[in-house]
Amino acid sequence: MDQKANPVLVEFTRGNWVENRHRAAFCIADSSGKIVANAGDIEHPIYPRSAIKSLQALALFESGAVEKFGLDDRDLALACASHKGESVHVEGVTRFLDKIGMTVDDLECGAHVPSDKVARNNMRKNGEEPSALHNNCSGKHTGMLAVAKALGEDPKGYIEQGHPVQKLVRTCVEKTVGASMSADRCGRDGCSIPTWASPLRGFATGFAKLSDPHSDLPELYKKAGQQLFDACAQNAMLVAGTDRIDTDAMTAFKGKLMMKVGADGVFCGALRDSHLGFALKVDDGSVPAAEAIVAGLVEKLAEVSEEQKTLLAKWSHKPTKNWRGFEVGTAHLSGEFASFF
Amino acid sequence: MDQKANPVLVEFTRGNWVENRHRAAFCIADSSGKIVANAGDIEHPIYPRSAIKSLQALALFESGAVEKFGLDDRDLALACASHKGESVHVEGVTRFLDKIGMTVDDLECGAHVPSDKVARNNMRKNGEEPSALHNNCSGKHTGMLAVAKALGEDPKGYIEQGHPVQKLVRTCVEKTVGASMSADRCGRDGCSIPTWASPLRGFATGFAKLSDPHSDLPELYKKAGQQLFDACAQNAMLVAGTDRIDTDAMTAFKGKLMMKVGADGVFCGALRDSHLGFALKVDDGSVPAAEAIVAGLVEKLAEVSEEQKTLLAKWSHKPTKNWRGFEVGTAHLSGEFASFF
Repeated sequence: MDQKANPVLVEFTRGNWVENRHRAAFCIADSSGKIVANAGDIEHPIYPRSAIKSLQALALFESGAVEKFGLDDRDLALACASHKGESVHVEGVTRFLDKIGMTVDDLECGAHVPSDKVARNNMRKNGEEPSALHNNCSGKHTGMLAVAKALGEDPKGYIEQGHPVQKLVRTCVEKTVGASMSADRCGRDGCSIPTWASPLRGFATGFAKLSDPHSDLPELYKKAGQQLFDACAQNAMLVAGTDRIDTDAMTAFKGKLMMKVGADGVFCGALRDSHLGFALKVDDGSVPAAEAIVAGLVEKLAEVSEEQKTLLAKWSHKPTKNWRGFEVGTAHLSGEFASFF
Repeated sequence: MDQKANPVLVEFTRGNWVENRHRAAFCIADSSGKIVANAGDIEHPIYPRSAIKSLQALALFESGAVEKFGLDDRDLALACASHKGESVHVEGVTRFLDKIGMTVDDLECGAHVPSDKVARNNMRKNGEEPSALHNNCSGKHTGMLAVAKALGEDPKGYIEQGHPVQKLVRTCVEKTVGASMSADRCGRDGCSIPTWASPLRGFATGFAKLSDPHSDLPELYKKAGQQLFDACAQNAMLVAGTDRIDTDAMTAFKGKLMMKVGADGVFCGALRDSHLGFALKVDDGSVPAAEAIVAGLVEKLAEVSEEQKTLLAKWSHKPTKNWRGFEVGTAHLSGEFASFF
């Protein structure tokens, strides 16, 4: 299956010449599904990966886990997080596991070293080995354990496509994006749960709905959406971590912006006031390119202060340095990017 | 300056769906400049980065450094290397520096930790800091110091575009690829020397010439080309290191193949018997995608044994694993790739 060439939205220069080009598609929609702006093929199914953790977290409400375990905004933020394994994340997930009466041994996400440099170096210095708590998805997995318990199901194997937890998660995502997830387009994510490919149009619309209290979602979803939006937007450090665009931008927009990176060049998010949702995917999977695009999207969509503009520009036009620290080029939005608005 | 969309030559799947696509161009030429096969835009100038270290190393012959310092094939292989900072590389570069009467303090490439995991972990365990010797380009830089000395020039600042060393290096590359390097398309490389963008067609032809004793290059270049080809092809471990396609493939082809990776998705190389040269660049800079393509190119160009075929297939069709070690997809040549031969 060939895909039409999406436009070049990001260029990496070296000296006075473009070295690398990144093609991508994005969609901006309102909660009725109306497209406000778009670039490239928004009907081609893409894997959203971790960018839709907040849609997957709707299962915490649908299953009754939020009420049963008295989950608060910090727990919800961690359930929606791709964190850097910093102490605030590890402590938070440990507390969340305690709350639901489970332990690190119940997590089926696998272990990896923290992506945060300081946390990683500290572990090495202390001769510690990473556990599943340090996995960037440990909060989401804890949430899925909570769903299993609330459903009265055996949590074992909760990562498998056929487990009641994943079935419920799938239903929640389908209801929000308004599309059915097809078994022809399913893969296993880095943390081992299923990820379902679906068009950007649906993801953008789904995030718009999450931000809009007057969407056509069922009441439970609407209420859950509002709470998840706020939990993320107001606990940005828990959702991402130090020196991440998600953290920086959500913090700068003071509760008005919710956004989330997904592996292999994906971002999804929404704005509180305009109730616009957005979704993007870089064809080649580059995360730095996706960061530049999302910074550009937010700047175009939101009413931004000078301070917010400066912050976003740090990500949409980023100097690259070499081993000696010389500035050798920039990673920046292409000239074509602006033409889609 | 927009570039026409190159074809998708590599796809990364997850489950049963393509997640990432990599567009690229490649050129295969003989030493007369005749194109044998190509894909995408081979006239668009690209930065060759480290893929042309063997062309830059011609300056060791032109300056008389090879004779003056009695450089052997191991020194030449290191001058053409992007090594992994393993002990064999660090020791080799130390010996090379000794030979020319200079030290690590003369190297202007900057320091970085070895890209080899074992070497890196050993350094950490011993509490050692990386030096310029561990920089993957330390051999090339030692070669450039040798050129400065042979020219009777002050080596200080040998990394700068205006230094006699870089002027000679530029001339050597220009003569071999048959194109002038333009200051409009010049950048600073990771190791701080200039890199000049030029079309793939020229690089492919230049590498064909390097492999062909009957090319139209000046006698000195022809002899140097033969020696550099052999030095690399027969010392693959010095040119690259453990678990690298360059090492594996050159070793498997027993002196008949010379190839070299360049940062941001470039490969150049040549085959001894057919005297064909090749050059490729992935538009988005992906190295894994470039590895798949070069494996495919070599398989198409060379007469391969079953054993060599199996080895190349390891790189042209590579399983990807997640944190738990589950095989989640593959990185492989696209269906379109074969259509260019």
